[in-house]
Amino acid sequence: MSKMILIPGKIVTANAEERIYHNHAVEIEDGIITNFIVKDSVDRSVYSGEIVDLPRLTLIPGFVQTHVHLCQTLFRGMADDLELLDWLQQRIFPLENSHNEESLKISADLGLFELQRCGTTTILDMGTINHQEIIFEELIKSGQRAFAGKCMIDRNDLFPNFKETAADSLNSSTVLADNYHNAADGRIKYGFAPRFVLSCSEKLLIDTKDLMHDYEGALFHTHSSENKSEVETVRRLTGKENIEYFNSIGVLEDHTVLAHCIHVNEQETETLKRTGTRVAHCPSSNLKLGSGIANIPNYLQKGLSVSLAADGAPCNNNLNIFTEMRLAALMQKPIHGAKAMDAKTVFRLATIEGAKALHLENEIGSIEIGKKADLVLLDLERADQSLNENDISIYANIVYSANSGNVHSVMVEGKWVVRNNISTLFEEKELVSRGRTELKKVIERAGI
Amino acid sequence: MSKMILIPGKIVTANAEERIYHNHAVEIEDGIITNFIVKDSVDRSVYSGEIVDLPRLTLIPGFVQTHVHLCQTLFRGMADDLELLDWLQQRIFPLENSHNEESLKISADLGLFELQRCGTTTILDMGTINHQEIIFEELIKSGQRAFAGKCMIDRNDLFPNFKETAADSLNSSTVLADNYHNAADGRIKYGFAPRFVLSCSEKLLIDTKDLMHDYEGALFHTHSSENKSEVETVRRLTGKENIEYFNSIGVLEDHTVLAHCIHVNEQETETLKRTGTRVAHCPSSNLKLGSGIANIPNYLQKGLSVSLAADGAPCNNNLNIFTEMRLAALMQKPIHGAKAMDAKTVFRLATIEGAKALHLENEIGSIEIGKKADLVLLDLERADQSLNENDISIYANIVYSANSGNVHSVMVEGKWVVRNNISTLFEEKELVSRGRTELKKVIERAGI
Repeated sequence: MSKMILIPGKIVTANAEERIYHNHAVEIEDGIITNFIVKDSVDRSVYSGEIVDLPRLTLIPGFVQTHVHLCQTLFRGMADDLELLDWLQQRIFPLENSHNEESLKISADLGLFELQRCGTTTILDMGTINHQEIIFEELIKSGQRAFAGKCMIDRNDLFPNFKETAADSLNSSTVLADNYHNAADGRIKYGFAPRFVLSCSEKLLIDTKDLMHDYEGALFHTHSSENKSEVETVRRLTGKENIEYFNSIGVLEDHTVLAHCIHVNEQETETLKRTGTRVAHCPSSNLKLGSGIANIPNYLQKGLSVSLAADGAPCNNNLNIFTEMRLAALMQKPIHGAKAMDAKTVFRLATIEGAKALHLENEIGSIEIGKKADLVLLDLERADQSLNENDISIYANIVYSANSGNVHSVMVEGKWVVRNNISTLFEEKELVSRGRTELKKVIERAGI
Repeated sequence: MSKMILIPGKIVTANAEERIYHNHAVEIEDGIITNFIVKDSVDRSVYSGEIVDLPRLTLIPGFVQTHVHLCQTLFRGMADDLELLDWLQQRIFPLENSHNEESLKISADLGLFELQRCGTTTILDMGTINHQEIIFEELIKSGQRAFAGKCMIDRNDLFPNFKETAADSLNSSTVLADNYHNAADGRIKYGFAPRFVLSCSEKLLIDTKDLMHDYEGALFHTHSSENKSEVETVRRLTGKENIEYFNSIGVLEDHTVLAHCIHVNEQETETLKRTGTRVAHCPSSNLKLGSGIANIPNYLQKGLSVSLAADGAPCNNNLNIFTEMRLAALMQKPIHGAKAMDAKTVFRLATIEGAKALHLENEIGSIEIGKKADLVLLDLERADQSLNENDISIYANIVYSANSGNVHSVMVEGKWVVRNNISTLFEEKELVSRGRTELKKVIERAGI
């Protein structure tokens, strides 16, 4: 049995009482948080496990991102200053379609390296059509907690080469779900991933939803209502608003995660609420692609599930939850007032609310006894942080001031994936070199 | 004579041709850029100066921020989630009013430490009413290039204690300008700093403008049209829009820098253009205080001078130009389309356009022969940057992906202020400790 006591300066639990400990240590056994112990009462002479003293650091729950695309990390900087449909047609679909196993592997590795180093311990990933098993294998190796699934596309007017038949898409998704749902002792789960209305037949969407129910705890993960042209096209094709269309074919429920949800009317908002559908909010991506600003304060007021995510590297161009938290707060304030989206609210969206979105709130998302030790240690004792020592300033420091450089160490289920800001798994220089080589080849294959 | 050859991997010049060198070194003599030399032709056996090999790094011009408040850095995290007028009344004015020499000194030091470590080599600072000489002394010691000036307030309905008479304000500004304009061999210049219409009598504004003309190269630096309640009050008091009021009393010209300029109509925009008035755009501050989004693409299309800045730490909560560049791009795209504010345009606003705003474009803002060696070395060879090796990706990497952690070294006029991400001047631990002590005392004095 592996045993450890972490003794940080502070512990921000993100539990229901929003408790912050200043004088406690956390005990971890076999990857599970088993106890809070008053610091002075830790008996070093008899404890048989490892004792880690980190008086300068603040312990927080690992961050959860509910919408990323590991397959796109390699394409960072390849599609700047474009709107969604041009971005897909001119760059992302041709590039994703040109992935081979090697390029997909490095793309996943680059993404996982960055996510972990920025403190994200759980993701919901939308994969790609081909070689999806590579992403699962990299997820297993990386120690990351993840839902993932191959991208399902059976129609594609934007880039017709990048699709397969509904039958092929369903069959290969089934094989992958059989192989990987609950892999790595349950750390990996399957998230069925039809891309969006414009690239999926109605039959594919409905059959995928039915298929999902064969796998307990699996998710249905897609995009919705991101871009004005997209929702206009959906309206023209289906006669309905995007979310009403999804609702009419029965794919909205509490295991459905919709990324974006920007162009959504009040009736659709009520539908999201009634069905328990999860909203994955992607602040940087929504701005950078010129998509718009989702009415998150309204969603929160109505009690919808809202969580945060970076989306893919080419529309961000980071996978850094600190950037997303800060922007999730700031972008709403000119519309809803400076009090909207305060730091504590946003911190919870990136931790416990992310866990709830994935139905993992009994396992992760806060620091509580019985939960998994998915934890981040932040160094906030810096000259570029607030020096005010009250509890509310901790949230402001994390959301408004901190960045990846403040992440000291990260563990998933009690295993260090980052220590002293260095990945325990990936060698950055090797990633850069391998990434450059593979990117050149993908660009050549894609002919762009 | 001090001589140095810097041999970086790349040089992003920000010159008029937007030249990027891949195969050149830069020679620096006595703080001036004297030559570009093909790397292979650097003769190491005969060169009498220092040769600095940095093949992994990208050399760029030092960043220019045209609106900061060093006196507020200590108050980071003390005024979150408030709108401008509440923010001033409840927090910032009482806190600024409670500064003593020691607290002002650490506030300036914390700001300069962060600005330099994030690659900002030139600032336009708005100071405070009391002890302004402390800020000048810290600027001189820090090596930073700066315009600064005491804040001028002769009426204050928000916080009546924090003001002085117009005569006192003008007299003490004159003494400071006499002492510090062109101090440190011209590295420090005076920027007269009436706070904003609501805290200045018309006489103070007009007399300050006249006074400025006594100091060649000095600036007139104030806030304008930041907040809706502010512009409504200005309209009620003066019968005019904020910028039209400034114009009517003759304070707009090409040595006037107006921070914010958010709530500005088309006629005012034409007035800004005609008078050559400089706009200092503060993206984070404008969002965080719920102020609004300035129509920067319109200003740029009309040929106005636009530059970037972080404003004060309590409304940001960083002084990091990377955050401001990224946000300056992203925040406009939902309004003006994804092509608006591309990475190269934004990079220029933070470098050469900042220099032009301050009339320093013949000295700084780009890497050119004869200009001062205000330079930043970035490490962009990272796994969280684009691995695409074309020139346009460099701008995207700097604006969309990079952050303070990518800043390797920084020099002002040939003197290192940051090396290997470590300040050559300030000891971070000491800043944190001194900051904590002084902040507690200011809070006590302010009684908040």
